[in-house]
Amino acid sequence: MRIAVLGTGMVGRALADRLDELGHEVAVGTRDVAGTLARTVPDGEVSYAAWQREHPSVRTETFAAAAAAAELVVNATGGTITLDALAAAGAANLAGKVLLDISVPLDFSKGFPPTLFVSGDDSLGERVQAAFPEARVVKALNTMNAEVMVRPALLGDDGHTVFVSGDDAEAKAVVTGLLTSFGHTDVLDLGDITTARGTEMLLPLWLRLMGALGTHVFNFKVVR
Amino acid sequence: MRIAVLGTGMVGRALADRLDELGHEVAVGTRDVAGTLARTVPDGEVSYAAWQREHPSVRTETFAAAAAAAELVVNATGGTITLDALAAAGAANLAGKVLLDISVPLDFSKGFPPTLFVSGDDSLGERVQAAFPEARVVKALNTMNAEVMVRPALLGDDGHTVFVSGDDAEAKAVVTGLLTSFGHTDVLDLGDITTARGTEMLLPLWLRLMGALGTHVFNFKVVR
Repeated sequence: MRIAVLGTGMVGRALADRLDELGHEVAVGTRDVAGTLARTVPDGEVSYAAWQREHPSVRTETFAAAAAAAELVVNATGGTITLDALAAAGAANLAGKVLLDISVPLDFSKGFPPTLFVSGDDSLGERVQAAFPEARVVKALNTMNAEVMVRPALLGDDGHTVFVSGDDAEAKAVVTGLLTSFGHTDVLDLGDITTARGTEMLLPLWLRLMGALGTHVFNFKVVR
Repeated sequence: MRIAVLGTGMVGRALADRLDELGHEVAVGTRDVAGTLARTVPDGEVSYAAWQREHPSVRTETFAAAAAAAELVVNATGGTITLDALAAAGAANLAGKVLLDISVPLDFSKGFPPTLFVSGDDSLGERVQAAFPEARVVKALNTMNAEVMVRPALLGDDGHTVFVSGDDAEAKAVVTGLLTSFGHTDVLDLGDITTARGTEMLLPLWLRLMGALGTHVFNFKVVR
């Protein structure tokens, strides 16, 4: 599949790396292509420039060019810039496409622990769907670390859960297929996009668990 | 141990039943003892009057009398009345005691799904600790159904997680012992009482899961 991954941080790179490995045609979308490719200071394991050299088959393009050519778009941008990044990608380039939204509504401006800038009776997933009504938004993967998202087997064979929320059943089936190809064995459909409120509000617990456990390699399993 | 369970709903009864079964000396605390004992309409499996007949060794007392005689107090009242109920129990009767707080800050006044009336940079657990600074508050069990709280083996032998949050390490050790006696095998200490923000914000996801799974007999396991 031709897939655009919007966002050049750890989440975007983890997704792009794994999708490339699985044989998809991947473009990473960014605001400023030249600026991104000129980043030679490591952020994460390596710099973006070094990461690009290690992934010659992944293209780095503008948000709009990546989204225009894609059949499926992954939003892996930070929550605070998500709506701007998607606007730069262009509503027309998202229309009719599955939009896998991984963004988290964390506000780090007041330090740690961050607070949620959307919660309660709204969610970032809903805001994305409302802003781009023709996109087929599926919220998923936003409850775990990037490594666990794409390589769930890191946590052993016992299984753990990935939630999907969205209004479009066919779009959720496409995302479920993608998650299964990553190795996820328990994809749990919570319902429509308003159920993203619940998974987005899991983040404060996730952050405290990271502190208590001293690792970000963990996940929730719904035992039933 | 002499234990007061404040609250006569499903959570209070489940706790009182299990603690009684385990040999503790249990008093259920309520605002109006005569009124509570006169409740003959089933709410839950049976009415309170019938439940009391089935539990002759459990006393039903005022919030204050139950708390005064107790070594450990369990707050199983609804979130919206928690601070009032604890005020009725009396700050002096809670001073120096372990206060296991199970309450959830759900507001059902606008229908389903309910919203949280405290969240973000505060929690009901913190409000309880702030209002009763001499109580040794431990937030726990607030992330699962009453049956699962007291009979975790209902979900099989694989184990699942119960979180504890609190400022007093000794109080958390006492609560951990109690949870272990219920059958919990994974008691995870998140840290101080501010970590209750995370577990209280898990409720919206819990409610959506109940809808998606069609059961309230499930729990989260932190796989790591």
